[in-house]
Amino acid sequence: MNAEIIAVGSELLLGQIANTNAQFLSQQLAELGINVYFHTVVGDNATRLEAAVKAAQKRANLIIFTGGLGPTKDDLTKETIAHLLQRELVMDQEALRSIEEYFKRTKRTMTENNKKQALVLQGAEVLKNDYGMAPGMALTIASITYMLLPGPPKEMRPMFIQYGRPFLMSKLERHERIESRVLRFFGIGESQLETEIADLIDQQSNPTIAPLAGDGEVTLRLTAKHESSLEAKKLLDETEAAIARRVGQYVYGYDNDTLFSKLVERLKEQNKTVAAAESLTGGRFTAELTAISGASQIVKGGVVCYTNEIKEQVLSVPASVLATDGAVSEPCAKLLAEHVRSFCKADIGISFTGVAGPDPLEGKPVGTVYVGISISGQETEVHALLLSGDRETIRTRTIKYGCFAILKKLTASL
Amino acid sequence: MNAEIIAVGSELLLGQIANTNAQFLSQQLAELGINVYFHTVVGDNATRLEAAVKAAQKRANLIIFTGGLGPTKDDLTKETIAHLLQRELVMDQEALRSIEEYFKRTKRTMTENNKKQALVLQGAEVLKNDYGMAPGMALTIASITYMLLPGPPKEMRPMFIQYGRPFLMSKLERHERIESRVLRFFGIGESQLETEIADLIDQQSNPTIAPLAGDGEVTLRLTAKHESSLEAKKLLDETEAAIARRVGQYVYGYDNDTLFSKLVERLKEQNKTVAAAESLTGGRFTAELTAISGASQIVKGGVVCYTNEIKEQVLSVPASVLATDGAVSEPCAKLLAEHVRSFCKADIGISFTGVAGPDPLEGKPVGTVYVGISISGQETEVHALLLSGDRETIRTRTIKYGCFAILKKLTASL
Repeated sequence: MNAEIIAVGSELLLGQIANTNAQFLSQQLAELGINVYFHTVVGDNATRLEAAVKAAQKRANLIIFTGGLGPTKDDLTKETIAHLLQRELVMDQEALRSIEEYFKRTKRTMTENNKKQALVLQGAEVLKNDYGMAPGMALTIASITYMLLPGPPKEMRPMFIQYGRPFLMSKLERHERIESRVLRFFGIGESQLETEIADLIDQQSNPTIAPLAGDGEVTLRLTAKHESSLEAKKLLDETEAAIARRVGQYVYGYDNDTLFSKLVERLKEQNKTVAAAESLTGGRFTAELTAISGASQIVKGGVVCYTNEIKEQVLSVPASVLATDGAVSEPCAKLLAEHVRSFCKADIGISFTGVAGPDPLEGKPVGTVYVGISISGQETEVHALLLSGDRETIRTRTIKYGCFAILKKLTASL
Repeated sequence: MNAEIIAVGSELLLGQIANTNAQFLSQQLAELGINVYFHTVVGDNATRLEAAVKAAQKRANLIIFTGGLGPTKDDLTKETIAHLLQRELVMDQEALRSIEEYFKRTKRTMTENNKKQALVLQGAEVLKNDYGMAPGMALTIASITYMLLPGPPKEMRPMFIQYGRPFLMSKLERHERIESRVLRFFGIGESQLETEIADLIDQQSNPTIAPLAGDGEVTLRLTAKHESSLEAKKLLDETEAAIARRVGQYVYGYDNDTLFSKLVERLKEQNKTVAAAESLTGGRFTAELTAISGASQIVKGGVVCYTNEIKEQVLSVPASVLATDGAVSEPCAKLLAEHVRSFCKADIGISFTGVAGPDPLEGKPVGTVYVGISISGQETEVHALLLSGDRETIRTRTIKYGCFAILKKLTASL
């Protein structure tokens, strides 16, 4: 089955909302092993919608529509499809009853145009709307399956999961299972990663290996197909092992993991606490960690030492260090990490100092960054980085680098 | 000019990301008065991309592509278009130099496939990439304008605004000017705002007034059309004044202002400094302020007092207060604000303490929040809030509330 998703709605073409429906349905279809080759967005215009449907009929045997099922004149998805397929629209009594009940329940007056929502394509399977009024529908004509879903994600998502997905599964003839896994990397660029595993990517089609880069990280999505879900997972394991042999040192997690969630998890496991001295990053490191529920077990706190005054008076960096080496320096990062650790009585102290831009500081170029890590009983490490990008990119990469560096040390000490 | 936006990338068809690029570009094109009739998403597949381009050529005279300009084999947008238009790809020396510099600066190894990014369509205007490696390009052939932009939003957005938009404006022949202005509100809900100005929204079509809610804020976008840009702006001024007479007390800024950028701006104007004691928010308040360039003038720093230990030992909240009133209490918020102000020698001290969830704390329900504000020479204020939403929503609304509260006090003291 090859699918195309057609979203109908001028609000999408005006940029008022993003087409998150297509994203959701694509994920769902990928899980069912149905290929999606095109997304199309078209406005509330019958002629252009008709053109979009005709194009889709040539290249897909499953066409899923979202939007345009409402009560107003703008809503013309089913009317257009009825016209194209030469099917009647008939009143669905159950849908009509549920619309009437909705108005009774919310004590609002039902206007005549609301009845329009209960019209469905003759012969279609009606998909119930448990969270709104307009029902969905699905039918197959001349080997093409058409599924019409409402536009509001709050109605569309449960309708698809509850009724649309089972309808499609009954249509699927094969029993192939699809399993996918995302490997998350830090500290390696997309092109270097691809170079390291180019032969693996080229040689194999099951699992497929798809790289994606963003926000200083790279991910590889492995997708395996097999009649048995267990066998598909085994295929994933084998490919993951082959990748890990080459670039395993850069892997930090799977699927929805983040560097921050992994760090919180690891610190909890090892029963260790952290405190941060944040100059460059202004509190973002602790803000990210404390965004995760349960962080109170492992985050002691921190000092946002944005000014030299606070570095000196609160975190006891000697004035001489600030005067000779500067705030953006290895000695300063070292002292900040050590002092914030003792100041907050934490097991691990981390410090971030650097030049976020737009202007150089202390004669040091934008992107100069020092990350200090102080752990009780170990020598303090200072990592010097030179990052590119704008202010926000530099700050984001800095805190991610800090997370990854602590994670590495925690793994080494296991 | 009628536009179609074609996004290229299998990650979109797999549902890994939503097509926010199409949303952004649609908004931008709407502002320029360019109609967008279709969005298309196609995978990293030359045959299907070619089909999509051919369909677009029949219905649009501006085709904007996003994605597929990177270094890997998957990236084939410009190659496919070059083939379709029978244009050569030529090495752009400036782009190549900037890629080489990027690798030099970040001390990473440049692999051969990175050079591919500097190839551009012969005769195209090259659009510089200030935030990444792959340049964009634009050219007009047979009355159709093709614009190729990179996929990562962080690169695509500034490239379009800086270089793509001016290119399109030079192509536009009509003389009607479109001016728009966004008014930003805090402390009033969308439905209340809409009720207050319902008659203004209904009665007028130039400017149009479009409300949008999100992240605890509401905005109104005013859009005016006129042959003269000056007259269009006058129309905006009049409508803005009418709105301000009703709900002006909730307006905090315009367009791309944020509560944080406004606070930094105001503090600079008044030459005042701020320091924060952050329990609930874990450093996010100072992180947001220091994300803005020039914050070093006004942010002294802060203490992330996530544990009671730090509240007591660093910020001198008496153990008795923590034992009887608790960390989430008015007295604690008051002392935290006062003490962080004196501790960091700032003009304004602000504190955030509360229950972010998922579980209640000290017998207080999730969403209980206290914001303390201490200003030299004034009595300390503590605002008690009861917020709804998940952990992140509560934290976000808390720091926004803090910003707005300080802004109000700064305005009052003018």
